[in-house]
Amino acid sequence: MEDKVARTSERQSIRCKAAICRKPSEPLSIEEIIVAPPMPHEARIRIICTSLCHSDVTFSNAEEPHAMFPRILGHEAVGVVESVGENVTEVTKGDVVLPLYMADCGDCTDCKSTKSNNCSKFPFRNYPWMHRYHTSRFTDLKGEIIHHFMFISSFSEYTVVDVANLIKIDPAIPPNRACLLGCGVSTGVGAAWKTAGVEAGSTVAIFGLGCIGLAVAEGARLCGATRIIGVDVNPEKHEIGKKFGVTDFINSRECGNKTVSQIIKEITDGGADYCFECVGMASLVHEAYASCRKNWGKTVVLGVDKPGTMLSLSSREILLDGKSLMGSLFGGLKPKSDVSILLKRYLDKELKLDEFVTHEVKFKDINKAFELLIKGESLRCVIWMDKEV
Amino acid sequence: MEDKVARTSERQSIRCKAAICRKPSEPLSIEEIIVAPPMPHEARIRIICTSLCHSDVTFSNAEEPHAMFPRILGHEAVGVVESVGENVTEVTKGDVVLPLYMADCGDCTDCKSTKSNNCSKFPFRNYPWMHRYHTSRFTDLKGEIIHHFMFISSFSEYTVVDVANLIKIDPAIPPNRACLLGCGVSTGVGAAWKTAGVEAGSTVAIFGLGCIGLAVAEGARLCGATRIIGVDVNPEKHEIGKKFGVTDFINSRECGNKTVSQIIKEITDGGADYCFECVGMASLVHEAYASCRKNWGKTVVLGVDKPGTMLSLSSREILLDGKSLMGSLFGGLKPKSDVSILLKRYLDKELKLDEFVTHEVKFKDINKAFELLIKGESLRCVIWMDKEV
Repeated sequence: MEDKVARTSERQSIRCKAAICRKPSEPLSIEEIIVAPPMPHEARIRIICTSLCHSDVTFSNAEEPHAMFPRILGHEAVGVVESVGENVTEVTKGDVVLPLYMADCGDCTDCKSTKSNNCSKFPFRNYPWMHRYHTSRFTDLKGEIIHHFMFISSFSEYTVVDVANLIKIDPAIPPNRACLLGCGVSTGVGAAWKTAGVEAGSTVAIFGLGCIGLAVAEGARLCGATRIIGVDVNPEKHEIGKKFGVTDFINSRECGNKTVSQIIKEITDGGADYCFECVGMASLVHEAYASCRKNWGKTVVLGVDKPGTMLSLSSREILLDGKSLMGSLFGGLKPKSDVSILLKRYLDKELKLDEFVTHEVKFKDINKAFELLIKGESLRCVIWMDKEV
Repeated sequence: MEDKVARTSERQSIRCKAAICRKPSEPLSIEEIIVAPPMPHEARIRIICTSLCHSDVTFSNAEEPHAMFPRILGHEAVGVVESVGENVTEVTKGDVVLPLYMADCGDCTDCKSTKSNNCSKFPFRNYPWMHRYHTSRFTDLKGEIIHHFMFISSFSEYTVVDVANLIKIDPAIPPNRACLLGCGVSTGVGAAWKTAGVEAGSTVAIFGLGCIGLAVAEGARLCGATRIIGVDVNPEKHEIGKKFGVTDFINSRECGNKTVSQIIKEITDGGADYCFECVGMASLVHEAYASCRKNWGKTVVLGVDKPGTMLSLSSREILLDGKSLMGSLFGGLKPKSDVSILLKRYLDKELKLDEFVTHEVKFKDINKAFELLIKGESLRCVIWMDKEV
């Protein structure tokens, strides 16, 4: 790696390896690519490690209508700034950084509001280019343009990220822990902490104990929830859930003649204060809504369902039941400031991150990370770019 | 009236006049009825005046599946306590009182919680009896039982109300103003104040400028909203709305090739902070939701749609748009304490009530009040029980 860096200069393109998603639902192809130098307000980063999130799997799949090929996926990562473009004051060469797919320009109505976490200058969207210039920094050796993903594209030894999407982090934080805060864990913890505002003593039900659902449990535990009910089809999630504060487990395939919501209402004397849907299935949103306590229950939608999926809710019930329904994008976290708080809480041994990392692989084995996640065997698999695992 | 009271004692039945809804969609029938003495925890009340709310019209109609006949409707009223049952300490004979269809037992989980306004001991429901004993206090002269309505049944010279549904009010407040706080005006003002939590400087859009919609405007005005957009099919509502703080008016029949939500998004630079549906039409809930500002907009459902009406919302939009949807029952007001605050704000000349009363009639003309409301000519028509208007 040193050799490769030595062959480049900060104003020149870098030739490095990347895992390219060339065709839908096929293994990623590790190839040499060219990474252009950063434009103004951008930084070029050497990725240290990156973890695999379910969105990477979704967008590697042709069934997702917003899929686009060829593309470099990956959006949970930690890296070191290799060089910066003009007008960059936020980070400098050598800084350890965490890219965030939600931008924070710090200057627009949304970034200045305490009620929004979605920058209106660079709003979150499935966009294949750098958002400031609408161009790519990646080409393959034949000169073909390769698309960006979620403004990060971390499945590459080098990538380019806008400074609106970057925070500098304390190098004391292990990169294979910090990278988790790029998406999934932040989303779950934030959904409990920021979107729902879980209070001490409250009751929480979580539909789906994957990484995000377990992170909701962790967030609810940090907020002082006394009862955290996990719902999953996989009985092994019972033991796993306990690590993150899950106090009760419902195997939704073993409810007899009752629905999950009936069971939750029975054991909570009326319903959970906060319900979180973490799978991406309209039927589960309905079940989560039904599981909420009348008069104050909140249902938070975190799972991404197929495009066009509609929820059907009774107008009278919405009026008479006094429940609310909301989505949670990146857990309602202010990308830069709130993620920095979570990083500090990890260093202070309050927030659990270690327990989410179930597997680690070398970059050359990145497709194994996909297999583990698709089979449901991993929570987070960390992919190291240049380190023996 | 004195003569009639003189003929009764507190432990005896009272014979008096009531307007009975005997058959669906027919005029109310003013007849003599027998009002039994109050049971423990109940008070018998001489009604001074009562106003007509749209729910009375709805439940006088056979199309409403929960309609029930014969029944004494009416639920916005002020009266004087004639006698009390055993174990009543909250009010005493001669007190001026405001009945509230939402109970407040003061003792259950919901009444003790700051997050609920729907008593779990006596929850709001369409119930034809007194809620503590499941019996009626009304019979006609043939001995037929007449049903109660919303625990109030104020279209009668005398009625019986549970103390959980009563507050004593300052006799200085004109009864034809205080009665409005029994339902519609409280619901609208509360929806802005309590359910939505409208802040100073915010933008509000209100779909439907009937009594509830105008009360939302009044509530938003009191909360310091700087822009209050009223939407209605009736162009006369523009001028009427101005009295309650409406700053912009959209005639939804004159939007050209644009939708109302497109216009609202244009004039608010992205959408209103808070949208209120006050008609009871699923299509308007969708339009209100679409009119909300992405990333923080709240849509509050106040209108009662036909039973079984379903809302259809995109699962991805809920997740990605960061909006929330909630219902508002009695405006989220704690029945006893919050209505007392609103009464005080009227006396302090902050809250407008006078402007809602567009008509006043004698009790014998109660069917005229129905005609005026059904035709859309009145906001609130006050019906006086024994006073020349």
